[in-house]
Amino acid sequence: MSSTASPPLRIIPLGGLGEIGKNMMAIEYGDDILIIDCGLMFPDEAHHGVDIVLPDAQYVIDRAENVVGVVITHGHEDHIGGLSHILPELGVSVYGTALTIGLVSVKLRESRRLRGITLETVEPGDTFGLGVFDVTLFRVNHSIPDAAGVIIDTPVGTVVHTGDFKLDHTPVDGKPTDFQRLAQAGEDGVLLLLSDSTYADVSGHTPSEAVVGTALARYIGEAEGRVIVASFASLISRIQQVADAAAAHGRRLGIIGRSMVDNVRLATELGYLRIPDGLLIPANQLDSSVPEETVIMTTGAQGEPTSALVRMARGTHQQVHIEPGDTVILSSNPIPGNEAVVGQTIDGLFRLGADVLYSRTEQVHVRGHASQEDLKLMMRLTKPRYFVPVHGDFRHLVHHTRLAESVGIPEDNIFLMNDGDVLEIDDVGDARIAESLDLRDRFVSGIHVGSVDNEVLRERAALSRNGIVTVSVPIDSETYDLVGDPVISMVGFLDQERADDLCIRLVEVVEDAVAKAQDAAVSKPAAGLSVIESAVREELNNVIYKDTRRRPRLLIQTTPL
Amino acid sequence: MSSTASPPLRIIPLGGLGEIGKNMMAIEYGDDILIIDCGLMFPDEAHHGVDIVLPDAQYVIDRAENVVGVVITHGHEDHIGGLSHILPELGVSVYGTALTIGLVSVKLRESRRLRGITLETVEPGDTFGLGVFDVTLFRVNHSIPDAAGVIIDTPVGTVVHTGDFKLDHTPVDGKPTDFQRLAQAGEDGVLLLLSDSTYADVSGHTPSEAVVGTALARYIGEAEGRVIVASFASLISRIQQVADAAAAHGRRLGIIGRSMVDNVRLATELGYLRIPDGLLIPANQLDSSVPEETVIMTTGAQGEPTSALVRMARGTHQQVHIEPGDTVILSSNPIPGNEAVVGQTIDGLFRLGADVLYSRTEQVHVRGHASQEDLKLMMRLTKPRYFVPVHGDFRHLVHHTRLAESVGIPEDNIFLMNDGDVLEIDDVGDARIAESLDLRDRFVSGIHVGSVDNEVLRERAALSRNGIVTVSVPIDSETYDLVGDPVISMVGFLDQERADDLCIRLVEVVEDAVAKAQDAAVSKPAAGLSVIESAVREELNNVIYKDTRRRPRLLIQTTPL
Repeated sequence: MSSTASPPLRIIPLGGLGEIGKNMMAIEYGDDILIIDCGLMFPDEAHHGVDIVLPDAQYVIDRAENVVGVVITHGHEDHIGGLSHILPELGVSVYGTALTIGLVSVKLRESRRLRGITLETVEPGDTFGLGVFDVTLFRVNHSIPDAAGVIIDTPVGTVVHTGDFKLDHTPVDGKPTDFQRLAQAGEDGVLLLLSDSTYADVSGHTPSEAVVGTALARYIGEAEGRVIVASFASLISRIQQVADAAAAHGRRLGIIGRSMVDNVRLATELGYLRIPDGLLIPANQLDSSVPEETVIMTTGAQGEPTSALVRMARGTHQQVHIEPGDTVILSSNPIPGNEAVVGQTIDGLFRLGADVLYSRTEQVHVRGHASQEDLKLMMRLTKPRYFVPVHGDFRHLVHHTRLAESVGIPEDNIFLMNDGDVLEIDDVGDARIAESLDLRDRFVSGIHVGSVDNEVLRERAALSRNGIVTVSVPIDSETYDLVGDPVISMVGFLDQERADDLCIRLVEVVEDAVAKAQDAAVSKPAAGLSVIESAVREELNNVIYKDTRRRPRLLIQTTPL
Repeated sequence: MSSTASPPLRIIPLGGLGEIGKNMMAIEYGDDILIIDCGLMFPDEAHHGVDIVLPDAQYVIDRAENVVGVVITHGHEDHIGGLSHILPELGVSVYGTALTIGLVSVKLRESRRLRGITLETVEPGDTFGLGVFDVTLFRVNHSIPDAAGVIIDTPVGTVVHTGDFKLDHTPVDGKPTDFQRLAQAGEDGVLLLLSDSTYADVSGHTPSEAVVGTALARYIGEAEGRVIVASFASLISRIQQVADAAAAHGRRLGIIGRSMVDNVRLATELGYLRIPDGLLIPANQLDSSVPEETVIMTTGAQGEPTSALVRMARGTHQQVHIEPGDTVILSSNPIPGNEAVVGQTIDGLFRLGADVLYSRTEQVHVRGHASQEDLKLMMRLTKPRYFVPVHGDFRHLVHHTRLAESVGIPEDNIFLMNDGDVLEIDDVGDARIAESLDLRDRFVSGIHVGSVDNEVLRERAALSRNGIVTVSVPIDSETYDLVGDPVISMVGFLDQERADDLCIRLVEVVEDAVAKAQDAAVSKPAAGLSVIESAVREELNNVIYKDTRRRPRLLIQTTPL
């Protein structure tokens, strides 16, 4: 109650807790707000026509003058993809490791949102001040190079945010997770650990990326024809391993897919990818290259509809035509929800005569996130007083809280938070969920943010189920006589023949309904049109449902004349 | 070339080869056609608004007088679900084991299609004649009791069709796959083996159903509160194991979900399920029953939107309200494409405070189909001259052909067939793909079969992406003057505010377009309206795209007056 009381530290997840993706976390103390990550989420099938989903950043946008900086843990879309939309409203600098900043800079340049924004490259291990916070990045392994976690020294204590991580003792770039820095933090005292939960329901340890390298090298060595490896454009270590295997077996390497070409260029420039001179073949020479001397690395391992691999599987890729003798390796696991399209892609490749290796049949992928035993080690290293699982669907967060209990963190010190929940820790170290912000996903569609809302999505879902029947009723606005023929159209409802038949019958239904409702309409001069409309709607609904047992969207336009 | 030449045996897959589901196979010799199975496929996300997908049975419908019978291997929807639509057009008898016929009879009664159809219960091992064919069912294990394969003695040789199967040495009902009958067939000589490929890309053996029983009994025994087990309604062995575990641990059992209630009743009547007296609790007593003395068995393990479990996870189920202390076991693996909705269901249950066990964390399910080593054993037992993999996506069929090669079946004797391909085997035993029928999936929507075609699906997909803009243009059909205000509506395109703004601006765009096109329209009296329509369409498309970078469906109705 004293006027000199210190403010509490406030931990405010804006995205990524309770639903995977669009990661964004605000850490607030007094008038200073530090933001960690600013990602996007790719739409699922319920997000009809939505290009991307953004976190609700209104809380920090409303307090933009307090924001001291945005720290990015690594260059994946679910950590950087929201920047081009949200950063201009904050107008602050972005901090990250070299490759991360390189990828952010490409993103912002593409969307022409770079103007006036400073991007700061930070060395892991270096400490820099942002407002009241002292920030240190520490190296972690993940499915992209140069990934980092963040140690934040605050007036209330030290917060460790792992970012996305795995523990890889034999990483392809030779740079393991910085166990020393984490152990030191644990020794010095960690107030709060925020740790990646993506695979908290998977037991054991996550295997090293090296496991995949061995397998890929063997498949590339044994293949008698051309080898095509599909993976994620940002999985630089996988590209490195494929390049190494190609070189070792006297093959040249083609890179296909715009995002992969871009990432290879950037990663090579910045020294994260070492491609021997003369190894690369230009895309336009691929079709004439000797199959058994060729490896192609491409995008599309998730069955993305416009990706290079999917076009190859459909036989519509301009440069690469799949042929018997080709071996295609899908070096990925399908993300939940993508299994069916990935399966169709594999089938398409088999149909064209290729041999296809995929994660169900071969060890051609490892996860980029820590499993249960790794997560326990992270907690043992940092010995946090408080623990909050981050980055996961709700079930992953629940499993992670159980792991925390299993290594002895008291139940009362573990907070199972959702996006929008605000955790406050005061200067004597007491912690509680103080409030909960009402967050709403922001949908980007075309060039607009927010032009598609949940109501629009409901309408699209209804349209996709049964289509729409539109009726134009030209009517005298005083007598409510029809002054022309009703025009009826159907889109996405019935096949052409049945639609034509039904339209003809519905014209009569409309005429009858108008005739019957006419007197009532005349007697309600202020609401006559809506009387007519209701009558037409009711009759049409009845007839259509009786005939088809379906309820298409019905749009009635009275054209008063 | 002699006029007395025998006809070839024709093997005609109508569904289930190249895409999983809607299994149906015709076996034709001269004027006799035997049909094996008649299933449906559940729609995927591209089948907007389609209720079910049927195989294209036109070939056998056109030859209905030749069809000697339909043999059903087991009672799953992908083997019996097409009967209610297709059987009335064939008018023949259906043959199967007791439980299978029971399930078929329920289906046909529901759809009131039973009239005039005879259903014949057949004992496994008994041989019966259908036209030129001698047919014998043999017992196999699968995720439903009373599943069978079919041995068909034809004038050309013996065909073995496995149906869906696994090899379970410790099945819950004590009835293993009939190895003796299969080995005898192999000894006597099998011309052709048609074998289930669903899990042909999974190495090793498929575990016994008994593995799950042990795990379920342990979880039910250890749980401190109520236990809810979700699985498939037809997985009677799973229901038996849950009933046994409930009885062993002094709990009573509630059955929730219409299809599960129906199946429990039928399976109990027919003796396939043995529920001790007094074990069952009526659904309306569940909410007052003591949690630690209660087990509930329910549907919805695939996250089906209207299923009991999904309603429980959303807190909208009338009889069962999930509470902290409840343990929910999802005794299933998500079918590809269902992972996301299953994940949401699990999250919903966790949010309500339940503990949730699912296949990623516990051994709570085993597959119902044979894995690679089991498939090899099937081939070694039957020693077929020719081999055709059935029941699988294309990749599964490919993997199965490789297994066949690995056990020594010559490559030339293995036929990788798609639905519609016709395999002919002549009387000296030569085999070849003779032709390929052009099959089209049949979509059932509401009460119509075929009212939704691929064009309708394309329209629905477009509507779901960007919605629709409709424009009503009341126009004088001679002067092409506007005779009233254009009426513009948007459905599923923009949020209300943006839609209203844009509509107001578009009215002017329409008025301008009509004015500009008026002279051209007058000069083409026969096509004036379409001149106006094109002009309006072009202008609207431009303005809408410029404003939103989206292309909604545009429906222009000129109302000539």
